Amino acid sequence: MRRPWSIGDPIAAFRTVRDRTEALAGPLGPEDRVDQSRPDASPATWQRAHPTWFFEEFLLAGSGCGSGYEPVDPSYRYLFNSYYEAVGDRQPRAARGLITRPTVDEVAAYRAAVDERVVALLAEGPGAGDGLRSTLELGLHHEEQHQELLLMDAAHLLAQHPARPAYDPAGPHPAPSPGGGDWLDHDGGTLTIGHDGAGFAFDNESPRHEVLLRPFRLRDRVVTCGEWLGFIEDGGYERADLWLSDGWAAVRDLGWTSPAYWRIVDGTWQVATLAGERPVRDDEPVAHVSYYEAEAFARWAGGRLPTEAEWEAVAASHWSVDAATADATQFEGAVWQWTSSAYLPYPGFRPAPGAVGESNGKFMVNQQVLRGGGCATPPGHSRPTYRNFFPAGARWAFSGLRLAADL
Amino acid sequence: MRRPWSIGDPIAAFRTVRDRTEALAGPLGPEDRVDQSRPDASPATWQRAHPTWFFEEFLLAGSGCGSGYEPVDPSYRYLFNSYYEAVGDRQPRAARGLITRPTVDEVAAYRAAVDERVVALLAEGPGAGDGLRSTLELGLHHEEQHQELLLMDAAHLLAQHPARPAYDPAGPHPAPSPGGGDWLDHDGGTLTIGHDGAGFAFDNESPRHEVLLRPFRLRDRVVTCGEWLGFIEDGGYERADLWLSDGWAAVRDLGWTSPAYWRIVDGTWQVATLAGERPVRDDEPVAHVSYYEAEAFARWAGGRLPTEAEWEAVAASHWSVDAATADATQFEGAVWQWTSSAYLPYPGFRPAPGAVGESNGKFMVNQQVLRGGGCATPPGHSRPTYRNFFPAGARWAFSGLRLAADL
Amino acid sequence: MRRPWSIGDPIAAFRTVRDRTEALAGPLGPEDRVDQSRPDASPATWQRAHPTWFFEEFLLAGSGCGSGYEPVDPSYRYLFNSYYEAVGDRQPRAARGLITRPTVDEVAAYRAAVDERVVALLAEGPGAGDGLRSTLELGLHHEEQHQELLLMDAAHLLAQHPARPAYDPAGPHPAPSPGGGDWLDHDGGTLTIGHDGAGFAFDNESPRHEVLLRPFRLRDRVVTCGEWLGFIEDGGYERADLWLSDGWAAVRDLGWTSPAYWRIVDGTWQVATLAGERPVRDDEPVAHVSYYEAEAFARWAGGRLPTEAEWEAVAASHWSVDAATADATQFEGAVWQWTSSAYLPYPGFRPAPGAVGESNGKFMVNQQVLRGGGCATPPGHSRPTYRNFFPAGARWAFSGLRLAADL
Amino acid sequence: MRRPWSIGDPIAAFRTVRDRTEALAGPLGPEDRVDQSRPDASPATWQRAHPTWFFEEFLLAGSGCGSGYEPVDPSYRYLFNSYYEAVGDRQPRAARGLITRPTVDEVAAYRAAVDERVVALLAEGPGAGDGLRSTLELGLHHEEQHQELLLMDAAHLLAQHPARPAYDPAGPHPAPSPGGGDWLDHDGGTLTIGHDGAGFAFDNESPRHEVLLRPFRLRDRVVTCGEWLGFIEDGGYERADLWLSDGWAAVRDLGWTSPAYWRIVDGTWQVATLAGERPVRDDEPVAHVSYYEAEAFARWAGGRLPTEAEWEAVAASHWSVDAATADATQFEGAVWQWTSSAYLPYPGFRPAPGAVGESNGKFMVNQQVLRGGGCATPPGHSRPTYRNFFPAGARWAFSGLRLAADL
Repeated sequence: MRRPWSIGDPIAAFRTVRDRTEALAGPLGPEDRVDQSRPDASPATWQRAHPTWFFEEFLLAGSGCGSGYEPVDPSYRYLFNSYYEAVGDRQPRAARGLITRPTVDEVAAYRAAVDERVVALLAEGPGAGDGLRSTLELGLHHEEQHQELLLMDAAHLLAQHPARPAYDPAGPHPAPSPGGGDWLDHDGGTLTIGHDGAGFAFDNESPRHEVLLRPFRLRDRVVTCGEWLGFIEDGGYERADLWLSDGWAAVRDLGWTSPAYWRIVDGTWQVATLAGERPVRDDEPVAHVSYYEAEAFARWAGGRLPTEAEWEAVAASHWSVDAATADATQFEGAVWQWTSSAYLPYPGFRPAPGAVGESNGKFMVNQQVLRGGGCATPPGHSRPTYRNFFPAGARWAFSGLRLAADL
Repeated sequence: MRRPWSIGDPIAAFRTVRDRTEALAGPLGPEDRVDQSRPDASPATWQRAHPTWFFEEFLLAGSGCGSGYEPVDPSYRYLFNSYYEAVGDRQPRAARGLITRPTVDEVAAYRAAVDERVVALLAEGPGAGDGLRSTLELGLHHEEQHQELLLMDAAHLLAQHPARPAYDPAGPHPAPSPGGGDWLDHDGGTLTIGHDGAGFAFDNESPRHEVLLRPFRLRDRVVTCGEWLGFIEDGGYERADLWLSDGWAAVRDLGWTSPAYWRIVDGTWQVATLAGERPVRDDEPVAHVSYYEAEAFARWAGGRLPTEAEWEAVAASHWSVDAATADATQFEGAVWQWTSSAYLPYPGFRPAPGAVGESNGKFMVNQQVLRGGGCATPPGHSRPTYRNFFPAGARWAFSGLRLAADL
Repeated sequence: MRRPWSIGDPIAAFRTVRDRTEALAGPLGPEDRVDQSRPDASPATWQRAHPTWFFEEFLLAGSGCGSGYEPVDPSYRYLFNSYYEAVGDRQPRAARGLITRPTVDEVAAYRAAVDERVVALLAEGPGAGDGLRSTLELGLHHEEQHQELLLMDAAHLLAQHPARPAYDPAGPHPAPSPGGGDWLDHDGGTLTIGHDGAGFAFDNESPRHEVLLRPFRLRDRVVTCGEWLGFIEDGGYERADLWLSDGWAAVRDLGWTSPAYWRIVDGTWQVATLAGERPVRDDEPVAHVSYYEAEAFARWAGGRLPTEAEWEAVAASHWSVDAATADATQFEGAVWQWTSSAYLPYPGFRPAPGAVGESNGKFMVNQQVLRGGGCATPPGHSRPTYRNFFPAGARWAFSGLRLAADL
Repeated sequence: MRRPWSIGDPIAAFRTVRDRTEALAGPLGPEDRVDQSRPDASPATWQRAHPTWFFEEFLLAGSGCGSGYEPVDPSYRYLFNSYYEAVGDRQPRAARGLITRPTVDEVAAYRAAVDERVVALLAEGPGAGDGLRSTLELGLHHEEQHQELLLMDAAHLLAQHPARPAYDPAGPHPAPSPGGGDWLDHDGGTLTIGHDGAGFAFDNESPRHEVLLRPFRLRDRVVTCGEWLGFIEDGGYERADLWLSDGWAAVRDLGWTSPAYWRIVDGTWQVATLAGERPVRDDEPVAHVSYYEAEAFARWAGGRLPTEAEWEAVAASHWSVDAATADATQFEGAVWQWTSSAYLPYPGFRPAPGAVGESNGKFMVNQQVLRGGGCATPPGHSRPTYRNFFPAGARWAFSGLRLAADL
């Protein structure tokens, strides 16, 4: 999908992204906006305030207005810093749900005040320099990440409610696959992956570097709920031999018998979606599965998960083809796809200097890479080189999988 | 203090209590009303809805309208049942904070709908019978309990916020003691305690029965913050010999160095109150101390905690004297006072039959009795025979102490 | 049963008790002696070494040999102090199982060295004074407590093994009841309970004081396994209405469906005993039940648990009657019997001064009193005024119950 | 180092390995042999019995004696199966410390009985077939792994004791480095790594495959304690910017201020070793550091950890050079060396069929690869292609690091 803004028009870009956040928070009442339903979830209030603080800290105070910057509210630096150690102490992550003040309206005022300052700064024009623009661009992509998190955390919160209410009757859900289930073959060889520097990318997508691949193939679509039901019916959640040891421990300890947000109601599998609970559809991509489940499914299906390099090698040429064409392959826009690659630095990786560099590199352990993009990902936010990452047991993202196999 | 309603006018009584709940919730924004800041806390939304469900379950469905009763919303029976096993499954206590729906407005509508039905039922007049009136009376006292819990849980929630915001600048706080610190002597002997049946009482205050007391005395006022500062300065939180073993474990494991909600800001002890954070005042009753702390303080002070029978024996004659008189003794209205008595059934105790009987008896283990009443207790709600109870480590109530000694 | 030693012959008394500990540890191999199967259990090595340290600390160093005392091994003061804060730091309770050194043989040498010193001190004769004798007496009763704990912790450890091996094929087990199941009526009134000062007692049995009792009765025998099977078969572990709230939580969270150490093997209830696993016998006292279970059983049976005063009032006249007589009532020697009394200080209670006084008073919260004595209790160790105590959820003691009822 | 046995003489090989296990267990008393000091540790008793069971299950019952095999003790299949789901239920890992029976002597008898059967089977000669020999070889390498674990778990257990006693005054410890601290440069390029099939290797070392490396270099020795002290003195454990996010959380939550088993005694850093506690020596390799610490140290030192491919590329040509020569590089024999590679399958990896194949593949997530070998590794057990693996927070192995850098 096309990104609805361009950094070439910074003020318009800023307004587009900022307005979208508010639009996404719209369907949530104030009651929905403070609750934290997992230790690693963030309330919608926080998802609105934190990117705002990011602009204050890194654009207004950091690169734009200098050391004399007067914050809109000094207490917000503590409340809405996420994990930037260099910035100072902050509200513990698991206690974000205790921030009932500022209120929804006060956060709106905070956003408006920062917006005004940023627009004023941007209006000063080219004198602000390249540093300003690159920080702005980073901040916009960062806010888009939180837009997606806002939806995923809302989905999680509402799925914990016994009635599984809807976020919005028109809320997004992974679209049925247009692909025919064919294999896309690749000859392997020495290829180059990573971001080439044209347009924005996060630091973890660099440096671009060569990799060596053996011949392989990928399916032209992601795994569907219908295929997953086959896995369930074949005892997939009951056969230890299909699972990694940590995965099998999760199955037993957490009682997994299906993807997250699924349950049987009156004999039928139902799934809690942002649009409310409704029957599982065979032709839809499966979502809310952990790496453990994805990996076990692939073994059951006689395949394997792709490495992130394999995925990128194929995705590069299939990205963003309109779903109406015969070539649609669902690399983008349905679900994030678990890869067999651990989240590690690319050869020669160097994080950005300063506090801003804390955003990706320091999480490079104990996580697996996902590629693609999901139904909750902002339009145009992802790209073929984009590296998403979650712990192997996480199920709250719109996370699915695509099968690979050796040739 | 006098109770502002009488069961003799049931409709007025009902409206008075119900309106007071809404008035108390008033200063809390919707953001404050869903958060659960301890596993055993309840959000304000729940504190408004649960007593409403109580009237539906026990007054409308139970004793008033028969088995054909159509609930306002069938899902509320699951969401707002507290612990009545006989009524059926319910939202787990530690997950009450996940109930973001019904919204604040929907709860208001729920309350209004039930109010309308109850008033209509009561308006039918004497035909409804004694059962109806006693259930109504029980429901009103029950709702008053949740009024107090609403304030105490709000105080806890706001004290977790780094800024320790106010619930209401005019929020209640334990009033300074009018007592002179003198001892009130008692000869002991065979006395009768427990409720005598005149007016309302909970089942755990019965049966009235004889107890044998040795001569003793009680202080005419509760322990003050000034006295507590003396305990702190004398190393009270650092001397194992003052503490019960479980208490000392709590001191070390939880890092207690003062009552809850106290902290040192710029060298001064501050306390978070419902009216916001402000300096600790020497002449105010100490609150938010656990049984462990109260018991250790008493040992440090060379005294002991009273038994509940001792407390009642003295309180009976000093209750509800206006604070302006010389005789004011703070038995009522400042803080709940830990006693050395475990919460156990009185001899011959029988819980009320049916689900309603689950309310007191089933908690009679692992708790200590508190007597008196606190600044958050509804006017006239308590009485000399009232038995409150909390686990020995709880500090979120307005809990203090009064010293006793042998004669 | 008669105590096999008298303080009138201190050296013989000392040797009798000390030898018995070694005899009890005998059936345990070195492998069995270091393991800690619960955070609050102690390995047999520790049970042998700790009372030895007690004699060193309080008899040799404390009252006998003065401040120049040279300990057998200075490191043992840290390793084998239980909870005496006044003595200094110690091995954390939950880490006693990590003490693999000193070895079994080294502990034997430690015991022998201390024995030699104690006997030498005692041989000095009357010059040593009354303080010495009372400390010795306390130390012997203290070691007897650890004899019982050694057996109960061994029983627990071996019951965790999948094969449930025997401690000793002749190991003790609660003997079948000689009583006929009749009621022993009591008129109540003002009675005196607590220790009268004749012979040894722990501090928590004093002061002797008056209590007021209403007419009541107790069964002449403890509850049997046959009666307990009736409770199980009637759904006792499945009916929330029978249970205290904390008890019901334990049933669900811990999956209780029977007393501890029971399991069904090939369709038959088996119980793990110190003599190995064998079928449950109807006529034997039920053991290894928690307070929660005892309390629920009593409710199911239409009775209640006795208070400790009621128990003592009846037991005083039935104690230690030989089991062969018609009057045997099993107050002593089968199982410890849960009472409805919380473990609290008697009126006027004062713990012994100094470190030795830490032994009972500081546990007076969050526990229930048990009376009587069990099959693992040393002969003559208990008495009608003896107050044992455990948390309400504990099941590893030989703990059963006796029914009471109002008259 | 040379392996002291050859599969070419299977009976001698079997006896050599089996005898070595018993020799290693020798210095441990029975008291030391049952204790489990971490949930993922195994007592020495278990480390002796489990490889014995392995021979029974996979050699005697599995490939040698057929389905009619009568086990030495049927209960051992439950007690001493580690994690083979295909074999059936087993003692929970965290409860291995509860296995006080069989005793030390009974385990010796178990070992002897199985040894006798295995030797008899092997003595039947070539008729037993290749399957037998390869299972035997696997079993011997497997037992060697448990020899190392026995030492590492003993080191952990004894380090938990306040006196930090010695396993054996002559116990192994990482030897000081002969290297001069120079860099070993490598041009990178397309190389082949993984096992080439000559001699034994575990399945996770295959398939041999090509990798693409950029120019890099490795230090000729591992990091020393002297270098680590520099890290400590420079505030290495206090600077969040040096650490991965999960690593920093470990530092704070677990209070790390040095490698495990280090503590300051009388102002001097001491380390608990298998030979007892002694001063940290500057020239010795640092051991007992987690991946988090190794990674932070490398960042502090201006380098990075090598990938496992880089490590293998250089190690292949430096392996097993005698420490007395100028070329000694400590790739083998001092400490296991953390790499920056997550433990994942090689391209085309297929686990061995059947239960035996559960040994490596199912752990391929949430772990980091270590290469080399440590002072507790059996002689000749490791090789340049050997892939060891631990969770990033583990510190109980003899785990250190070697620095790498880009060229």
